[in-house]
Amino acid sequence: MGVEERRQQLIGVALDLFSRRSPDEVSIDEIASAAGISRPLVYHYFPGKLSLYEAALKRASEDLASRFEEPHEGPLGARLLRVMRRFFDFVDDHGPGFSALMRGGPAVPADGVGSKEHTSATNALIDSVRQAAYDQILSHLNVTDASPRLELVIRTWISLAESTALIWLDGRRIPRSDLERQLVHDFAALAAVSAAYDPDMAALVRAMVEDEPADGPFAELAGRLITLAS
Amino acid sequence: MGVEERRQQLIGVALDLFSRRSPDEVSIDEIASAAGISRPLVYHYFPGKLSLYEAALKRASEDLASRFEEPHEGPLGARLLRVMRRFFDFVDDHGPGFSALMRGGPAVPADGVGSKEHTSATNALIDSVRQAAYDQILSHLNVTDASPRLELVIRTWISLAESTALIWLDGRRIPRSDLERQLVHDFAALAAVSAAYDPDMAALVRAMVEDEPADGPFAELAGRLITLAS
Repeated sequence: MGVEERRQQLIGVALDLFSRRSPDEVSIDEIASAAGISRPLVYHYFPGKLSLYEAALKRASEDLASRFEEPHEGPLGARLLRVMRRFFDFVDDHGPGFSALMRGGPAVPADGVGSKEHTSATNALIDSVRQAAYDQILSHLNVTDASPRLELVIRTWISLAESTALIWLDGRRIPRSDLERQLVHDFAALAAVSAAYDPDMAALVRAMVEDEPADGPFAELAGRLITLAS
Repeated sequence: MGVEERRQQLIGVALDLFSRRSPDEVSIDEIASAAGISRPLVYHYFPGKLSLYEAALKRASEDLASRFEEPHEGPLGARLLRVMRRFFDFVDDHGPGFSALMRGGPAVPADGVGSKEHTSATNALIDSVRQAAYDQILSHLNVTDASPRLELVIRTWISLAESTALIWLDGRRIPRSDLERQLVHDFAALAAVSAAYDPDMAALVRAMVEDEPADGPFAELAGRLITLAS
């Protein structure tokens, strides 16, 4: 294997291990063994567990960011539902690693390297994924210059998706398909609350709902809420 | 001053400084000067900036947790609105310190002390405040044993309140009174979305809304949403 090929293989093996258990519990020996190489050879490619963790996290971040990309075709509710399915696929695949990273600050594998630099590197990756999600949603709303209220709705909804996923991972007590749909509805609900007091948000929500089919998730929610209220 | 009195005074001075600027930027010299004592005397009471930071954070956590306590009297919407006002009072008073703590993992003042212990200590304090908020809301809903869906609604709404406050602090581009009301409405909206698909949540939301007056925040939102939809 070439140097870059070997590095990529190691990152893949490490990501798989860091995803399936808390990164603190994964050792270099285990990574070496899973990759079928010796421990010194791992150190030949990566100075230590921390740099391997950061490389794996970078790959996972790019993967997650790519899952927010969705063709600009068809009703908005259905697009968002597809994105939520891919988001939960990711969370499902990377559960323990995702929890360790998002809970209580980034997981810091002890490595003798300055943890402050590590913390800011991992936070920058997390923020880059959030920004990718934010940019995608804005583009699907056909908005280039978001008002403070729209920005708030989108960014707080992204944090809602994160916390929903984290709580789901803790015991999986609610079917994930329910939560994928619920998050689509939560987006509509948060936008509607903002729209109730702001004419610009009201115009945006009207445009958002206008093209929705009668069997789409937004219409379904509206129908159920009307039933609930009566 | 007695030992405990001096310690409490130092914690108060430190909390004030850690609140008004990013904790990283606050020095022991500054704390000593603000307290009107010498730097060595500060070290007599606290081994370093990190332990002083943790003591200040503990006091702030207890303060914040206490702001979720609200008498069980009157309509629920108005109670929640009063809690949100006190929450934003706190955020307003501790802005830069709150942001530094909640963004990108806990602020870690370099101090030669293991940052891993620090991270888990600060996370435990943040979690204790979240738990206090969660317990208070449950008690106001007269629920002792929350279903997974109710727990999800409450805990994700708490994360929504945190992210709303953080985004507000970044430029204060929306009046805080709007956001206090919006968060009350967001709670109702998230509960309603969950209720649209779950009979137990539907029963809870009905009970929640039953005692609401026509001029309360929940009725106001419902009225505005009906206007928006028509």
